[in-house]
Amino acid sequence: MASTELSRRELANGIRALAMDAVQKANSGHPGAPMGMADIAEVLWRDYLRHAPQRPGWFDRDRFVLSNGHGSMLQYALLHLSGYDVSVDDLKNFRQLHSRTPGHPEYGYTPGVETTTGPLGQGLANSVGMALAERMLAARFNRPGHEIIDHYTYVFMGDGCLMEGVSHEACSLAGTLGLGKLIAFYDDNSISIDGNVEGWYTEDVRQRFEAYGWQVIGPIDGHDGEAVRQAIEQARADTSRPTLIDCKTVIGFGAPNQCGTAGVHGAPLGEEEIAACRKELGWEHGPFEIPDAHYQAWDGRGRGEELLQAWGERLEAYRKEHPELADELERRMRGELPGNWQELVAEGLEKFAGGKKDATRKSSQAVLGHFGPHLPELLGGSADLTGSNNTWWDGCSTVSQAQADGNYVFYGVREFGMTAIMNGVALHGGFIPYGGTFLIFSDYARNAVRMAALMKQRVVMVYTHDSIGLGEDGPTHQPIEQLASLRLIPNLHVWRPCDAQETAAAWAASIAREDGPSMLALSRQGMEPQQRNGEQVRSISRGGYILKEAGSGKPELVILATGSEVDLAMAAREQLEAEGRAVRVVSMPCVEAFCEQDEAYRQQVLPGDVPRVAVEAGATGLWQGWVGQCGLVVGIDTFGESAPGPELYEHFGLTADNVATAGRRVLG
Amino acid sequence: MASTELSRRELANGIRALAMDAVQKANSGHPGAPMGMADIAEVLWRDYLRHAPQRPGWFDRDRFVLSNGHGSMLQYALLHLSGYDVSVDDLKNFRQLHSRTPGHPEYGYTPGVETTTGPLGQGLANSVGMALAERMLAARFNRPGHEIIDHYTYVFMGDGCLMEGVSHEACSLAGTLGLGKLIAFYDDNSISIDGNVEGWYTEDVRQRFEAYGWQVIGPIDGHDGEAVRQAIEQARADTSRPTLIDCKTVIGFGAPNQCGTAGVHGAPLGEEEIAACRKELGWEHGPFEIPDAHYQAWDGRGRGEELLQAWGERLEAYRKEHPELADELERRMRGELPGNWQELVAEGLEKFAGGKKDATRKSSQAVLGHFGPHLPELLGGSADLTGSNNTWWDGCSTVSQAQADGNYVFYGVREFGMTAIMNGVALHGGFIPYGGTFLIFSDYARNAVRMAALMKQRVVMVYTHDSIGLGEDGPTHQPIEQLASLRLIPNLHVWRPCDAQETAAAWAASIAREDGPSMLALSRQGMEPQQRNGEQVRSISRGGYILKEAGSGKPELVILATGSEVDLAMAAREQLEAEGRAVRVVSMPCVEAFCEQDEAYRQQVLPGDVPRVAVEAGATGLWQGWVGQCGLVVGIDTFGESAPGPELYEHFGLTADNVATAGRRVLG
Repeated sequence: MASTELSRRELANGIRALAMDAVQKANSGHPGAPMGMADIAEVLWRDYLRHAPQRPGWFDRDRFVLSNGHGSMLQYALLHLSGYDVSVDDLKNFRQLHSRTPGHPEYGYTPGVETTTGPLGQGLANSVGMALAERMLAARFNRPGHEIIDHYTYVFMGDGCLMEGVSHEACSLAGTLGLGKLIAFYDDNSISIDGNVEGWYTEDVRQRFEAYGWQVIGPIDGHDGEAVRQAIEQARADTSRPTLIDCKTVIGFGAPNQCGTAGVHGAPLGEEEIAACRKELGWEHGPFEIPDAHYQAWDGRGRGEELLQAWGERLEAYRKEHPELADELERRMRGELPGNWQELVAEGLEKFAGGKKDATRKSSQAVLGHFGPHLPELLGGSADLTGSNNTWWDGCSTVSQAQADGNYVFYGVREFGMTAIMNGVALHGGFIPYGGTFLIFSDYARNAVRMAALMKQRVVMVYTHDSIGLGEDGPTHQPIEQLASLRLIPNLHVWRPCDAQETAAAWAASIAREDGPSMLALSRQGMEPQQRNGEQVRSISRGGYILKEAGSGKPELVILATGSEVDLAMAAREQLEAEGRAVRVVSMPCVEAFCEQDEAYRQQVLPGDVPRVAVEAGATGLWQGWVGQCGLVVGIDTFGESAPGPELYEHFGLTADNVATAGRRVLG
Repeated sequence: MASTELSRRELANGIRALAMDAVQKANSGHPGAPMGMADIAEVLWRDYLRHAPQRPGWFDRDRFVLSNGHGSMLQYALLHLSGYDVSVDDLKNFRQLHSRTPGHPEYGYTPGVETTTGPLGQGLANSVGMALAERMLAARFNRPGHEIIDHYTYVFMGDGCLMEGVSHEACSLAGTLGLGKLIAFYDDNSISIDGNVEGWYTEDVRQRFEAYGWQVIGPIDGHDGEAVRQAIEQARADTSRPTLIDCKTVIGFGAPNQCGTAGVHGAPLGEEEIAACRKELGWEHGPFEIPDAHYQAWDGRGRGEELLQAWGERLEAYRKEHPELADELERRMRGELPGNWQELVAEGLEKFAGGKKDATRKSSQAVLGHFGPHLPELLGGSADLTGSNNTWWDGCSTVSQAQADGNYVFYGVREFGMTAIMNGVALHGGFIPYGGTFLIFSDYARNAVRMAALMKQRVVMVYTHDSIGLGEDGPTHQPIEQLASLRLIPNLHVWRPCDAQETAAAWAASIAREDGPSMLALSRQGMEPQQRNGEQVRSISRGGYILKEAGSGKPELVILATGSEVDLAMAAREQLEAEGRAVRVVSMPCVEAFCEQDEAYRQQVLPGDVPRVAVEAGATGLWQGWVGQCGLVVGIDTFGESAPGPELYEHFGLTADNVATAGRRVLG
């Protein structure tokens, strides 16, 4: 076979050539990392990675994450060479509109891309989530003689990823959880955008990862295929600890004049340097030309077919011996909810009607107790606020190194890491992760929330202590602009229920939502249950509905409210109705879901010709658009204060009286 | 003297008693940390901390930061006992509205509180900024025989701070910069809110900090005063590395039944346990009662007077020998701009009129070149995007361990750390820090931006690549909701200039703004300069102004725009005016500054009865409020795409044609 005659270096040079050519053609992009990591990638992808290019979604595949996502051409070249549905034309369209080869790897755009990367450090945290998911599924489903879940997670990363705080959060936890099938390759090239990192990044990375409890290998020569191979062997041999392989590399390896400098990081090499590089590498082929022998040597489809077949047989044998487990596994692999889901929701909505005054964080816990026993795929957790977020329900069991078959992760005080790990768990499949913190600390996790929305992942953020109502902890803990700013994230559903029944509906919608994340803003303080008829109960999931019609049936004013302020709206309505005004209260637990309703429904709930007042214990800016220039908003646009919650509601004017006054003013 | 008879433990018990009594009275708060760290605090505050309770603002004082801010009663007790203006009544008002003793330490509320803490990890990062500021000022101003700047920064922190990613970012950089006068006390009590940290935090913290290049001392017994004293001595002896002192402590030390558990972390002990604790500690005094002998032993005012006097003499001697340096130092300590500031601004506005088409990030660099030479207090930097953010101007010099007398910090890929460090630098005084990253990565730093706003600090965020106009890097790098979501943060000024002259005005306003942070959203792509008369130039600083009046002088439509979309607004106006419509263009570079103008001015620029169209390459939600129900907004509410910038503007409909069409629709 011709392929056997090609050296590792020659095969790696194919990646280098494609990377430099594509960046040059796009006149934009990052050739340095692909050229620097090509030799490592060649060994990993050709000798170790268990995947099937013809079926990128095969569940038991190894996961590969390029955390230094700016080096996207490395991944695209690998996918193309290995036989994924990524053509030369796709590579020629690098960074063009609607191509399969966007500037950074985008989940859903390109077969074989496991997660969207670019925002540094998060791919690494995603990979921790993937390795965690594998480990938990293996613990849940594998049986003696049946290793039905058995794959590795490999991640490439650079100095940038390791400088980011989220790398600390995720890797520290990965060490504690002993994720032995996570193998990270550190592209240790001493270069970041501003130049040689010696001026800003001098920590001993190996020692740092040893402190995390990782196996640390190297430094090795990242351009020595045999050294890479040995390192991977050693990495895989230790299944109790994640492994960091410190690979010393030269950024832009092969570019004779620019390699080893920041210049090669994020700009095309230029025609002249590319010609010199071809010469240096002995690569005699034209732009985007890969000889057949290379394609043959790279093609992963044959091996993929064997892997698919073997796994199919394993699954068959497993099903025979463990039919119920197999059913559950397959359902979870498909991401389908249990067959009785609709009944569960109906039961839940009924069960949580009325009741006593309670905080929605506590209602949320009760709702979890209702759905949880039927949803083994629910994976809970909190960033060290379990008792405050009420994320633990009585069917929870802790995930630990010793016992991975649990359904609750104690993430520690790591909001960003938690969220990026949840994204990785969701991307892996088999779980619906939810995780809690205080609403204010969504700030710490914000970009990971955005990434969940961008990647359309089913992740549920449980954000409690959702207003100044939390009281004494003061302005650092009181969300003001958070609700509004989260609503601004495209494709995120922000739920702010006003009582237990709305909380049940919010959870049901969040769990069922397949194409994006949801978040629940929940109160610390108690809230009165509202009364609803059957149609109103069914309408909660529409995001906004008439909670209380005007006494006369024809409203002169609509009061819009969410969460803890619905009660204020109801009380204000009472005042105004007593004065002879006809006032409707609209509860709007999820603005985004309401906006997805048809025009007729929206018009019915919010008639265009009826003036409006909105009330929410947070920033007013977005509500201004809802009430228009003639309406008024009762809210808070300054920072909070430290005092008991009820006093703060008075202090900041969030009272029924003020809502009623606003209503009178609007009515003129 | 009576005081000498009191043991260290007895003195520390005063803190414990005040902490448990105040938390009990408030029925809310965190007694665990104050009781656990009381012995450490006693040694530090009584034997080492150089401060003057009667003059909390003395510039050369040691800085003390409580990064585990939930333990606020520790700090309030220390301030009270040492003689700051924090009375017993203040302590009794713990966590009450408008008290000096809010739930978490709040900068500006309490004399002696150096920074607002509570959001974990950030106090530690602030302390890195403070130590950096001290070092840079010392390098700039100290002369042989004149150590005019010479103080330590001490920080207390717990497991929570160290789990947070920002601790990694800040401490890694502190190691690289060799901040030898930063001394951190790690409250190593193995407890966080969810319980014993062994389930989620098992990293070897000492090894981790060694990896950062810190001096690591301990573990020591944090309840052994002599061990603490020796550790501090050792810490201070090494001035080339920051020091971590690992203090093993028992959370809630003294509470016989609850100490060492998560139960004591964040809830009152209860009357019974408090009584038991008094017995256990041998503390025989009533609630909030501190015997005189204790007050005498704690009082720091006598020593403070000596320190103030000695420093005054040092400053006098310094002024004699180095009058110009002394003038500069005193001006910077007061936070005053140079005397010729107004002329500099006027010159700048004139200089940056007209010119060629340019990206505002490049204009920003030129503006820095104009102001920079006159502002030695400007401290620049970037999170590894210096060349892209254009934050380096030709008067910049690098701050490093070897050469601290620079004005530019290479922060590395650490957006959150950078911002929290800048906050610390600003809080310390003597500098106006600015730092760059891409606008999208404001997400990573978001809570530190909020903290700057909450603390009213003069910090300038330079956020470039401010829209889909950045092009090929794609949706992970393209801000959509960021501008709007940053505008939602109270007390943050968001500038988005449309050309060089507006950029000059934005910088001038940001530098001059004394009571809060500002941010500049700057373009990657070139923008045409706009024409302005003198009044228009002066109006830029008002945040919004008439850039182009309707041809007839009486507008039927106002088009509102910011930054790169101002040009689209101008082109759309041309179209509409050609059709006989009277259209005004309002440039709105800073919504917040505009909102601070008087009603008359706002009404003049945006008459209530003239319909509006707004255009901005970002989320439309906030603009809906500006245009009202009859107006229209041209913007983007979905994620971006990877493609060349101009193509994306077409693809997302951000064109002059579409703005004109919106105008026609609004005009009816």
